[in-house]
Amino acid sequence: MSEPVDLLIRGTLVNVHTGTLEGGAVAVDDGEIVALEERPAERELEAAYVAPGLIDAHMHVESSMVPLVRYAEAVVPRGVVGLIWDPHEIANVLGESGIRSAIADVGKTPLKARITVPSSVPASGLQQGGATVGPDAVDRLLDANAVVALGEVMDVPAVVAGEETVHEKIAAARERGLTVDGHMPRVTGSTLQEAARFLDTDHESISLEEARAKAAAGIRVYLREGSSSTDLATIAPLVEEIDTRFLSLCTDDRDILDLVDRGGIDDVLRRAIAEGIDPVTAVQMATLNTAESYGLPFGRLQPGAPADLVLLSDLETWAVDHVLVDGVVDPTGGSVGAAQWRGPEETRSGGAGDEETRSGEAGERRSAEPSGETPVTALSTDTVACGSISPSDLAHPAPTDADTVTVRVIDSVEGIQTARKTATVPVRDGVLVANREADAIPLAVIDRHRPDGPIGTGFVHGLGLDRGAIATTVAHDAHNLVVAGRTHDAMATVATELCELGGGIAVFDPESEEITALSLPIAGLLSDQPLTVVCDQFEAVDSAATQIGLTDETLLGLTFLSLEVIPELRLTSNGLVDVDRMTYVDVVV
Amino acid sequence: MSEPVDLLIRGTLVNVHTGTLEGGAVAVDDGEIVALEERPAERELEAAYVAPGLIDAHMHVESSMVPLVRYAEAVVPRGVVGLIWDPHEIANVLGESGIRSAIADVGKTPLKARITVPSSVPASGLQQGGATVGPDAVDRLLDANAVVALGEVMDVPAVVAGEETVHEKIAAARERGLTVDGHMPRVTGSTLQEAARFLDTDHESISLEEARAKAAAGIRVYLREGSSSTDLATIAPLVEEIDTRFLSLCTDDRDILDLVDRGGIDDVLRRAIAEGIDPVTAVQMATLNTAESYGLPFGRLQPGAPADLVLLSDLETWAVDHVLVDGVVDPTGGSVGAAQWRGPEETRSGGAGDEETRSGEAGERRSAEPSGETPVTALSTDTVACGSISPSDLAHPAPTDADTVTVRVIDSVEGIQTARKTATVPVRDGVLVANREADAIPLAVIDRHRPDGPIGTGFVHGLGLDRGAIATTVAHDAHNLVVAGRTHDAMATVATELCELGGGIAVFDPESEEITALSLPIAGLLSDQPLTVVCDQFEAVDSAATQIGLTDETLLGLTFLSLEVIPELRLTSNGLVDVDRMTYVDVVV
Repeated sequence: MSEPVDLLIRGTLVNVHTGTLEGGAVAVDDGEIVALEERPAERELEAAYVAPGLIDAHMHVESSMVPLVRYAEAVVPRGVVGLIWDPHEIANVLGESGIRSAIADVGKTPLKARITVPSSVPASGLQQGGATVGPDAVDRLLDANAVVALGEVMDVPAVVAGEETVHEKIAAARERGLTVDGHMPRVTGSTLQEAARFLDTDHESISLEEARAKAAAGIRVYLREGSSSTDLATIAPLVEEIDTRFLSLCTDDRDILDLVDRGGIDDVLRRAIAEGIDPVTAVQMATLNTAESYGLPFGRLQPGAPADLVLLSDLETWAVDHVLVDGVVDPTGGSVGAAQWRGPEETRSGGAGDEETRSGEAGERRSAEPSGETPVTALSTDTVACGSISPSDLAHPAPTDADTVTVRVIDSVEGIQTARKTATVPVRDGVLVANREADAIPLAVIDRHRPDGPIGTGFVHGLGLDRGAIATTVAHDAHNLVVAGRTHDAMATVATELCELGGGIAVFDPESEEITALSLPIAGLLSDQPLTVVCDQFEAVDSAATQIGLTDETLLGLTFLSLEVIPELRLTSNGLVDVDRMTYVDVVV
Repeated sequence: MSEPVDLLIRGTLVNVHTGTLEGGAVAVDDGEIVALEERPAERELEAAYVAPGLIDAHMHVESSMVPLVRYAEAVVPRGVVGLIWDPHEIANVLGESGIRSAIADVGKTPLKARITVPSSVPASGLQQGGATVGPDAVDRLLDANAVVALGEVMDVPAVVAGEETVHEKIAAARERGLTVDGHMPRVTGSTLQEAARFLDTDHESISLEEARAKAAAGIRVYLREGSSSTDLATIAPLVEEIDTRFLSLCTDDRDILDLVDRGGIDDVLRRAIAEGIDPVTAVQMATLNTAESYGLPFGRLQPGAPADLVLLSDLETWAVDHVLVDGVVDPTGGSVGAAQWRGPEETRSGGAGDEETRSGEAGERRSAEPSGETPVTALSTDTVACGSISPSDLAHPAPTDADTVTVRVIDSVEGIQTARKTATVPVRDGVLVANREADAIPLAVIDRHRPDGPIGTGFVHGLGLDRGAIATTVAHDAHNLVVAGRTHDAMATVATELCELGGGIAVFDPESEEITALSLPIAGLLSDQPLTVVCDQFEAVDSAATQIGLTDETLLGLTFLSLEVIPELRLTSNGLVDVDRMTYVDVVV
């Protein structure tokens, strides 16, 4: 205690343990908080407030379409030092080895990502994704480095029914003393009580009553504010009603534009304070409470904790001056605002290259990377096995030689919901084609995980697409290649391009005869480009999709048209599925 | 969910998770809380309030001089279902095997005792107790069943100095994700900051400022209300100042009379509410907060938790109607009041015999037990190795043939404190004897753990003893046989008797020529008798001690005269120790 410490920071401490604000000092040495008092130091900093670094209680990095290292560049300068990542999408594409690659990525950034092992891969037995993650794989993965929980258990009816596979996975987590995350949208009453016996957390409440019932059953309730699901304002009143120790903040899903423009869990914190939640309580909900949920040593401001700190000029607006991770000041580059992050200079100076040098984890070079840099991810870039697609591959054959046929059509009604519908479509050259007046256009789902895999064909209504075609390999949960279009030719053009790119989202506009693409070669889900480039490409694809008639909502809806566990009708690579009955049904009525 | 559950309890639920009171129902099946809602049930109960069973956050069963099974008889009917037991005294007598016996005792009662592995045995290298518990033994024991923490780390200077042995033990607990309990009386400032890096909890605060500083450093503060240390009222205002999630209630030490007359942690809870602490907050401090401190599944009221419940007719006075442990109603017998517990009928009907039958853990019979009953403890009853003691064994030899000699005298000043003093004592037949006018009377410490062990001899002032002699094998921490008396003859008489009893506390009154004894044959610390008998014997010895001049305070002080780590002067079996210098000093100046 006689040697000067590395760093002393003076300011008002946001003491999340006592829930108080008090003027003081934090002494940092060898990456650790060694004292909350004045100490002689090599370096001194002043801040209006000093808080522990924030933790996102539940999220999927994949939603931002960038690998973890890039995600970190966006959030660490904003005071986010940790997150609980459920690599659910990666798991559906790459299985156990993909999850291990995600875990390997954790070491590439100062951001403390902790992993939950996806519990619900595949979504069902009705469609082949890239992989299955069964109880044995879950059991192995729960022992892996950085793993803190079993990821969100989605099949609540199976939990309640005592289904063996899901209970094996839960038991494996319990044996290790790990948390079991739940996923209980609209689950109430006796089903909630039964689920609460086995599941510790939930982030799916969309009403105050639902959140209140879960909290009363002892479930940790996470208040979510993502890009598509924005529940914070609705649930925020709960904070005034109950002990807040079991409440946390999470993003769940943030698209790349929200991430870069507004931030991650820091943005949720800011909104929580704006909703009237006491700032110290809000910080607890984004630090200590989540640390306690998963037994994390960080998210704390006490001697013995890692020096993961945020120096703020203002607490209520979470105005960040500096960020420390393990005592390193601004480890991914200097302080940033959203506008700055859009500039290429900041991205370069705050980029992954610096960090990888710091962490000393130089890996082998890969051709996809600019020369002189280590890979941003251990995840595979070879996950799209389909090749050249011909129009006839995507067409549904006519059952008879009649001029028209009545078919089942997926009605893309609102958000990610669908409804059953029928329509009459014309027959041309032995296949069923679009009925443009009825807005029943061809849809196909190509198994992209294996060469010469099956292709499901059918029809969709309500996307708003009025020319050309759109294709995506971001297609929950199996992440096959989903393509919709006015003609089979346009569909084949855009699908073939997407296969060549190794995945992503592509739009073909026959007016300009151009394909606009967001290339996502990493697992067919993530970009290998810098944040600003991804934002630009995302906006370009979004704009091109708007040009051919889609809205932001129907574009999102498109990525869920193949998810065979959400009502009512979905198209898989194996064919059309009636979700209520969980069986295949014929396209032709 | 269609079959009726075993039991439904209706009442106002003390929901410790949300910190609220709300009318509802608890459904219990197969020993588990399966729902917080109405369910068809085989049996129904009503209560004004339903709370989770209480947990004592830190205590030593040994302080009550009964084994765990008997302790449970006293507290389970009062709504205590768990406790964190540091078998520190057992460890000093019996070492690793004794701790394992303590762990074995956990299975003999429905009371959920969880064990902390004593970290500080022996107190120093200056005196031989029964055993040493080194880093290797700690390492092994941390893997044992029922172990939840490293027990209170007492040598804070060693922690701060980075001393290897203590840090090995701390690291062993950390590796296993276990809690590390602290013991930091009057530790403040930089020492506190440094200790807070390594220690998670503390129960030694005797001032509000001390407690506040510890809480601000992220330490879990336990508010203690024992028999000798009563700090609750002093520290209670902290509850209004800070987030209470890291505050717990504990007893630390409760003597047998307090235990039986007033209760255990239930009594502390009652006093906490009387001090003005919100009842729900107080219950959290005696249930959930402690459960979180040690990662316990009980102390909770939620689906999936064990059905450890207390049915109350009144919350503020903690008036207990029924207690459930793992769904069993009143597992140690019916509801009791303090008065009832003193009656032999209640003790018999609610006794250990029932429980042992229930738990099905029939062990081999031992001669010390009444026939037909299984042993109340796995602990040894053969721990006093010394035999017949002669007066000359206890006398300090005269260094010269002078009539008087000046000697160092332990001044028993207040509570368990001592001070240095000198006095002149007469020489008779070559040995030093009492100076009655100066109240300097002979004191001896006999190594009782090994045959023909050393005997330390010296003088004590301030016990108030004005005739006869008193001896005890309850003598912190080494628990050697300490005997003080006006004459060496009286001392030898009472010490010999105590050896024959196998340990305990004995008083010899020369006026009546009677020895009054509390026999403590289990480890020389605990009685094998029913609670009421132990109370009667304890009161008899206390009364006899009062007759020969001691007070309750000096009787307690006697049991600490041999603890060589508390200032200023102590007598060990190896001789007199100056605590400030941690060296032996001569009795003769």
